[in-house]
Amino acid sequence: MARLVMKFGGTSVANIERIRNVARHVKREVEAGYQVAVVVSAMSGKTNELVAWCKDASALYDTREYDAVVASGEQVTSGLLAIALQEMGVPARSWQGWQIPISTDDAHGSARIMEIDGETLGTRVDGGEVAVIAGFQGMHLPTGRITTLGRGGSDTSAVAIAAALKAERCDIYTDVDGVYTTDPRVVPKARRLDRIAFEEMLEMASLGAKVLQVRSVELAMVHNVRTFVRSSLVDPDAPEMAHVEKAGTLICDEEEIVASQMESQVVTGIAFARDEAQVSIRRVADKPGIAAAVFGPLAEAHINVDMIVQNVSADGFTDITFTVPSADFERAKAVIEKARDAIAFQVVEGAVDVTKVSVIGIGMRSHAGVAAKAFEALAGKGINIRAITTSEIKISFLIDAAYTELAVRTLHSLYGLDS
Amino acid sequence: MARLVMKFGGTSVANIERIRNVARHVKREVEAGYQVAVVVSAMSGKTNELVAWCKDASALYDTREYDAVVASGEQVTSGLLAIALQEMGVPARSWQGWQIPISTDDAHGSARIMEIDGETLGTRVDGGEVAVIAGFQGMHLPTGRITTLGRGGSDTSAVAIAAALKAERCDIYTDVDGVYTTDPRVVPKARRLDRIAFEEMLEMASLGAKVLQVRSVELAMVHNVRTFVRSSLVDPDAPEMAHVEKAGTLICDEEEIVASQMESQVVTGIAFARDEAQVSIRRVADKPGIAAAVFGPLAEAHINVDMIVQNVSADGFTDITFTVPSADFERAKAVIEKARDAIAFQVVEGAVDVTKVSVIGIGMRSHAGVAAKAFEALAGKGINIRAITTSEIKISFLIDAAYTELAVRTLHSLYGLDS
Repeated sequence: MARLVMKFGGTSVANIERIRNVARHVKREVEAGYQVAVVVSAMSGKTNELVAWCKDASALYDTREYDAVVASGEQVTSGLLAIALQEMGVPARSWQGWQIPISTDDAHGSARIMEIDGETLGTRVDGGEVAVIAGFQGMHLPTGRITTLGRGGSDTSAVAIAAALKAERCDIYTDVDGVYTTDPRVVPKARRLDRIAFEEMLEMASLGAKVLQVRSVELAMVHNVRTFVRSSLVDPDAPEMAHVEKAGTLICDEEEIVASQMESQVVTGIAFARDEAQVSIRRVADKPGIAAAVFGPLAEAHINVDMIVQNVSADGFTDITFTVPSADFERAKAVIEKARDAIAFQVVEGAVDVTKVSVIGIGMRSHAGVAAKAFEALAGKGINIRAITTSEIKISFLIDAAYTELAVRTLHSLYGLDS
Repeated sequence: MARLVMKFGGTSVANIERIRNVARHVKREVEAGYQVAVVVSAMSGKTNELVAWCKDASALYDTREYDAVVASGEQVTSGLLAIALQEMGVPARSWQGWQIPISTDDAHGSARIMEIDGETLGTRVDGGEVAVIAGFQGMHLPTGRITTLGRGGSDTSAVAIAAALKAERCDIYTDVDGVYTTDPRVVPKARRLDRIAFEEMLEMASLGAKVLQVRSVELAMVHNVRTFVRSSLVDPDAPEMAHVEKAGTLICDEEEIVASQMESQVVTGIAFARDEAQVSIRRVADKPGIAAAVFGPLAEAHINVDMIVQNVSADGFTDITFTVPSADFERAKAVIEKARDAIAFQVVEGAVDVTKVSVIGIGMRSHAGVAAKAFEALAGKGINIRAITTSEIKISFLIDAAYTELAVRTLHSLYGLDS
């Protein structure tokens, strides 16, 4: 029999009524023949409350104690779901991070999983007992202290456990019913994707489609964990729940996608990120070490740099353009001004209120002219492109924020994504 | 340097402000030179909330999962107090039951402590780091599951940890400032005791003086843990807090009490328990096995029998009187009626609205006439004694509930306990 990991977030376990609903989802899969491990978050609002208490106790709280405090939220829901399952006649047992154990490093508050002992857990699950695992938690084995994986860490827990258990699939239940070609609030014709490749999802997630934690997608890609995003809001016993293919979006290996399609789609989705700011350094002397002189000080100031564009130089000078979160715009300019001696430039300028729009698709690897079509279409709508970067599977455009919706809709139609 | 265990209940850690207050109490003792371990309960109300959720999830909840859920309350306060202490510059670390570990049996929901590994904890405490221990929790080592000690278990945790650490004292901070000669609400002249022997406290506790869990006093007696009951409501930095002798009641070995007093007190306190009911079985044939015939069926019905009085028989018949909680009165009579064939009696009768008043004192061992004085004094006030039982260190009277206050005040004055 196959193993299945199911993950439910905070809103899905917000009270006992909803926990019972989650139990019905689990029961359905057990009755379908799966050996199930469930990963749960804390009841929605609980983690915020616990974090606020820590901050109230000390602004500079010890993260080891913070972890002991906030991990308690998941402990509560894991026990309650186990009880709710037993009440429905489904054998179940709760597991805390330290009980499995889920071994992590000692970066308290944002620990990384080192190893999961899937042995005991697997034996119990195979014996027909649902393992209800507190997400978000781990343990630093050398010190025996509780760790937590950082916000949204339960997605990562679920994927890591699916890898350790060699599960057939990791189902992430959330408040949306899958991954869309773009944000449906911007493009009403956005379609839910049946499948998306790990690499594409990584671009979609990090570019602003907030369905799954980037970290969990990375982990799924590395361990090839088939991850299925689906809704926890539907009736657990609705007939369509039995047909998994119709109930959400499967994030999987490129090969599985290629095998499933007669003809592959070139573009999979359009992502966008608002609240970007563009910083341009004009007439920088084009000499070795100049990139380090610019981006070293920014990194030291903990400013997250995203797009970086540098053209070939003319007459020994070049322009360097990059984007930062708009909240960091003024600080970024100040950092550059301060490094003027080392960089040697004419002027630093830029703009807040810019948006990065990205066209994503693994099919772009084998199709030429994808970018050219976009330039033409955007130009046709009078949208000025401030900067462009490309990778193997995406093209990103920096445009004025006012044109965001227009650009996204234009590109969505252009690549045949409208439903 | 000496080790000290300090225990704080739910109302003392009800919010961050109060947790800070607790931290100040701890800091005072650290500065006085103690190596400190602190035991904390859950924030008041939290355990009730968690228990309610378990019951809501299933009326017949699994106690193993119940334990995982409710233990989280103490986990939160232990982490928060550690943070609050660090904020005040006091090195501190939280410890869960499983981290120490506190080994218990597997009677989930009301586990008994088997063993505490005081080794690591002692080393850390000796190194100047305050150990903040989640009370109420333990772990069943063979299964690796969290256990809890049952309601009021944090007192037991504290005493057990004091024993394991060979602490000089176990300070129980509570909402009263010590143990009184009797309930001050009934006798305004009641005095706080400086010292009380374990045996006396056991009688006081089980007879209705609700200061400490009976279980924790038993444990303190067995391991000779000097247990000090004091108030958490006073200003932690008040000058009198430095003079421990004046701040509460020390529960200790009889020898320490004898050594501390020029002349020992005969009577230490007057305890009373309302809500008792008296059951009398008239004209029972006085033959072997009759007690078993009466009390066997009551035990099977889970009816708690307290006082038992049986007089020598006249003409081959005797009367048996005993007390039960008044809520069990009708049920107890029905059980006896049902066993009529085995017991062979004339009639079973009794009364609710009776109170048991007890005179307690280790000095009674060496002083004759203590009981006689009481009979005389009560008779002088026209109080009818329904039944009497005695032990080495106490005399208990069963009287009509209406005379409770009068009897307690009379006895309190009689034995020179008025302040």
